[in-house]
Amino acid sequence: MEYREAAALLLRQDDILILTHKRPDGDTIGCAVGLCQALREQGKTAWVLPNEDATSLFTPYLEGYLAPEDFAPAYVVAVDIAGRQLFTPAGEVYLERGIDLTIDHHPSQEYYAAETCLDAGRAACGELIYDLVRQWGPVSPRTALPLYVAVSTDTGCFMYSNTTPETHRVAAHLMETGIDFQTANKRHFRTKSLKRLKLESLIVETMDLHDGGAIAIAAISLADMARLAATERDAEDIAAFVGQMEGVHTSVTIRELEGGECKLSVRTDATLNATRVCALLGGGGHAAAAGCTVPGTVEEAKTAILAAIRKVQTDA
Amino acid sequence: MEYREAAALLLRQDDILILTHKRPDGDTIGCAVGLCQALREQGKTAWVLPNEDATSLFTPYLEGYLAPEDFAPAYVVAVDIAGRQLFTPAGEVYLERGIDLTIDHHPSQEYYAAETCLDAGRAACGELIYDLVRQWGPVSPRTALPLYVAVSTDTGCFMYSNTTPETHRVAAHLMETGIDFQTANKRHFRTKSLKRLKLESLIVETMDLHDGGAIAIAAISLADMARLAATERDAEDIAAFVGQMEGVHTSVTIRELEGGECKLSVRTDATLNATRVCALLGGGGHAAAAGCTVPGTVEEAKTAILAAIRKVQTDA
Repeated sequence: MEYREAAALLLRQDDILILTHKRPDGDTIGCAVGLCQALREQGKTAWVLPNEDATSLFTPYLEGYLAPEDFAPAYVVAVDIAGRQLFTPAGEVYLERGIDLTIDHHPSQEYYAAETCLDAGRAACGELIYDLVRQWGPVSPRTALPLYVAVSTDTGCFMYSNTTPETHRVAAHLMETGIDFQTANKRHFRTKSLKRLKLESLIVETMDLHDGGAIAIAAISLADMARLAATERDAEDIAAFVGQMEGVHTSVTIRELEGGECKLSVRTDATLNATRVCALLGGGGHAAAAGCTVPGTVEEAKTAILAAIRKVQTDA
Repeated sequence: MEYREAAALLLRQDDILILTHKRPDGDTIGCAVGLCQALREQGKTAWVLPNEDATSLFTPYLEGYLAPEDFAPAYVVAVDIAGRQLFTPAGEVYLERGIDLTIDHHPSQEYYAAETCLDAGRAACGELIYDLVRQWGPVSPRTALPLYVAVSTDTGCFMYSNTTPETHRVAAHLMETGIDFQTANKRHFRTKSLKRLKLESLIVETMDLHDGGAIAIAAISLADMARLAATERDAEDIAAFVGQMEGVHTSVTIRELEGGECKLSVRTDATLNATRVCALLGGGGHAAAAGCTVPGTVEEAKTAILAAIRKVQTDA
């Protein structure tokens, strides 16, 4: 179903509940809030299902949009949810009841809903929601701000390779409504917790460099996390931090897990295939970013992954 | 002079030399290379004057465009150069001879050239150059890539408050030519030298926090720089690093200088006026970002700036 049809379909509904995905990011939250606000401006009763995983980075956007417990929806919409396993526990209830419409941009969409509005060419689902809601008339700033958050966070503020000319055009339209994009950008791209900075500092001071700095192996132990009182939010996407180091072609980030295991994230450039490295340790992923989980201590994990890198280097 | 007029004027010239500003950034370099390439595509002889300050971050873009020593220009254009004191030593020779045209976006433009094409509403001078060169026909990828670098670097990859809807529209057009914007973005926004990371790490480990973390005072001594063998490029814009810390309202970055002085950069949010703080120590700047230079050691500078902050807090 095309977005114009989805826009027309939604106008015929009321008492609409909007669902976001597990471990929600800016795209799913921004889409849900933007769509909810736009529906309300069309005179609809619309709410977003509370998502227990939402971090403090995104909860402020949800204020005033979270469905009360006694809300009985007549129509259920999922946004940015590619598959069944990505529903939250509260969302699974509605998956069993049946999702009426899903709006998504993931090529891995599982078509679990009665109607699917999919455009896999979009960098962010927020782009698609923008095209949908503007079918109803001019987009208000209250609709535009969460959609800007959706688009900007899913593209690393227009930095990542998924960004398209259309992404920039949508951003231009959203900014023209007069939104405070500066505060949002500062919040999402130019703010780091002191604990996060201390984790990064720990990595810089303790990582192992091999081959003249072409290979960097960094580790964060459970003891490190405890000593810094760091949370998962502080450690989020820490693998990207190691990967940005100038001259590093292969970066490995090791996280010690409970139960005597370590989780490894491997980032490589064109000189090495990350999936082949991780496959040797039972993992997988993409050519430039892969992962695996291995038993043992951090030191054992370091030895194992370096051996795997050497093996793939030799075979190449 | 409007950019359409400037485009027509340039088409009537030949043997054109393009000048960039002192301590060149991505905007001035990107504008010069983009304009030079576009002029060549119009059959003109055009070169960029070598800039002795250009760092390795930008020199690759200049390859093939640097004027040979014996080039005798008939027409001289300055790009992104607001004032006379921003000419390089080599450029000053042409300032004396007379600049034929300046293309700029700074409101502080000094009108030193025979003709001025100024649009102070543009986030980057690269936006203006784009509008100018497309008057001559479709923009080629070789022209578009340096202009993308100009626009993206001057806006922090569309993150800073100077970004406008027009900035995004220009980026969309430039991307449509098929440029490798991913490699440029990785280079300019997602690469840090190990020395830079060690400087950041040093700041995190040694900065002083006051008022429950609302005030952060960081310092880099000459001994620190020497120990890490860090260069000015590694320390560039380090004040922004301290300013990104969550919960920090006032950040101070102290750089020890040769000769028993310290240079201080103060960043504040709306809770404190940075210029009033720095004015107490003989400096100045903007409400949210100001600076000053004080005699004495790093420790003396810390004491002096904290006293200045306390004085402005008390007066407020």
